[in-house]
Amino acid sequence: MSMRDFSQSHECLSINTATVRQSYGADFPLPKIIEACLERGIGAISPWRDQVAAAGLPLISKLVRTHGLKLSGYCRGGMFPAADAKGIDAADLDNRIAVDEACELNAKCLVLVVGGLPGALAGKPIHKDIQGSRNQVFDGIGKLLEYSKSCGMPLAIEPLHPMYAADRACINTLEQALDVCDALDNEQTGAIGVAVDVYHVWWDPKLQSQIERAGKNRLLAFHVCDWLTPTTDLLNDRGMMGDGVIDIPKIRGWVEAQGFVGFSEVEIFSTGNWWLRSHEEVLDTCIARHTGGFV
Amino acid sequence: MSMRDFSQSHECLSINTATVRQSYGADFPLPKIIEACLERGIGAISPWRDQVAAAGLPLISKLVRTHGLKLSGYCRGGMFPAADAKGIDAADLDNRIAVDEACELNAKCLVLVVGGLPGALAGKPIHKDIQGSRNQVFDGIGKLLEYSKSCGMPLAIEPLHPMYAADRACINTLEQALDVCDALDNEQTGAIGVAVDVYHVWWDPKLQSQIERAGKNRLLAFHVCDWLTPTTDLLNDRGMMGDGVIDIPKIRGWVEAQGFVGFSEVEIFSTGNWWLRSHEEVLDTCIARHTGGFV
Repeated sequence: MSMRDFSQSHECLSINTATVRQSYGADFPLPKIIEACLERGIGAISPWRDQVAAAGLPLISKLVRTHGLKLSGYCRGGMFPAADAKGIDAADLDNRIAVDEACELNAKCLVLVVGGLPGALAGKPIHKDIQGSRNQVFDGIGKLLEYSKSCGMPLAIEPLHPMYAADRACINTLEQALDVCDALDNEQTGAIGVAVDVYHVWWDPKLQSQIERAGKNRLLAFHVCDWLTPTTDLLNDRGMMGDGVIDIPKIRGWVEAQGFVGFSEVEIFSTGNWWLRSHEEVLDTCIARHTGGFV
Repeated sequence: MSMRDFSQSHECLSINTATVRQSYGADFPLPKIIEACLERGIGAISPWRDQVAAAGLPLISKLVRTHGLKLSGYCRGGMFPAADAKGIDAADLDNRIAVDEACELNAKCLVLVVGGLPGALAGKPIHKDIQGSRNQVFDGIGKLLEYSKSCGMPLAIEPLHPMYAADRACINTLEQALDVCDALDNEQTGAIGVAVDVYHVWWDPKLQSQIERAGKNRLLAFHVCDWLTPTTDLLNDRGMMGDGVIDIPKIRGWVEAQGFVGFSEVEIFSTGNWWLRSHEEVLDTCIARHTGGFV
């Protein structure tokens, strides 16, 4: 099976709006991001909840519908682990609201960054029991899935790089994410699957086999950026496609061999480089790399 | 099976000499490190080749023999991938010399940090073919194993955290390391095994099962430090045991349940904290944490 040809157009390009969260280092609001994407014929985005909230869901919903924008995903639900039952309930409620927002925006899926040790993101982990967090994550996804199925919104578990295991997500490999999918939806209905972000999984010696295991019904999103050498910050030093060591076309080939026909979504966090540049330069570069053989 | 009691003595403590590579931020040479360890009744170390070379192998060998110091390991062989046959040959030769040095010092094992993409450590990766590097690593270990077996020096593959896959080691999980061991020494003779460093593997959802798979004959070394939240540097921000999120006693329990009776080796790289303190404080803290229930 041959890969899709991206060289002739960028119709398969989606912009995760974190990529242009800033322009020249200053906050760049979502309506402006949408406008800049539309100007360039970029037909899909994946917005973050805080950006949507800042502009107001009704406005963003209207912009999306008016312009026929697609959402390759909605960022993000998750962060299930908590210190106590009250915290668990709050996370569950917030996740159901995230599902509702994703439905309103007609997103392809709600991306789940599942959370790690409670308190760790604020530098104050309350325990060291990562298996306990994983159990809470499993329970939380299970509950959310009941709700999301009733709304018809697929959940995409995003395994995060192991360097985020403590503070952001304790699901760290595709294999682990697919084990959760198997346990919750053994029939592979598509109600739950995975978001494959090359930044998080490129290193995995089992990547190809686990992509094959996932299959079309569970491959809900495909995110791209690049791993720089050296990487100077654990969170905000992601590279533009082509500037690092990830063989992105090879991984895309594995994903498309399973029948994936979705967007290639660019998600770059870069305090020291891309966020300091103009949004025009960033978006134009995304298009150039997308069509230039780097994706 | 109950764990060993570390609370009454530090006879099972080993100091990886990188931990006190600097004292007050200044280079602290290996003979001084040995002296400081001996003063505290620390009976084992794991020295680095550059530190040995700086002092001269004959001197270090004499110190080790005179004082009956044990070496929980020797750091390190590896870095197998190269750009061409000449580079491969050079790596192979250097690794055989590392085996010879380890033998001279009567080390328990030669630790292998296997290398990643050629050039990546210098910021100039020459390709993106991580599977190609993994193939070179496999071939390199296979060749070295023939030599090391003839000398009776066990090789300990150290799976490094996936954040080092590009530049330091493309063996990134215990499962992957054990697959190599199976392929090269299916009889589990002990000629090749693994170094389990909690910093590199603590996040792995398959950690316990893979430690059980390794078994006593392949568990050649056990390294400890801690994962800090936040972690501010990918290489040199390791924490002292107890200061981070790793449940070290739990992992040690899994290792000892397999019959491991070796040293617990402290290996901390910390440009911003521990390397700025005095070597006395660092070593005394290592002892206190080792006996204080944090290991």
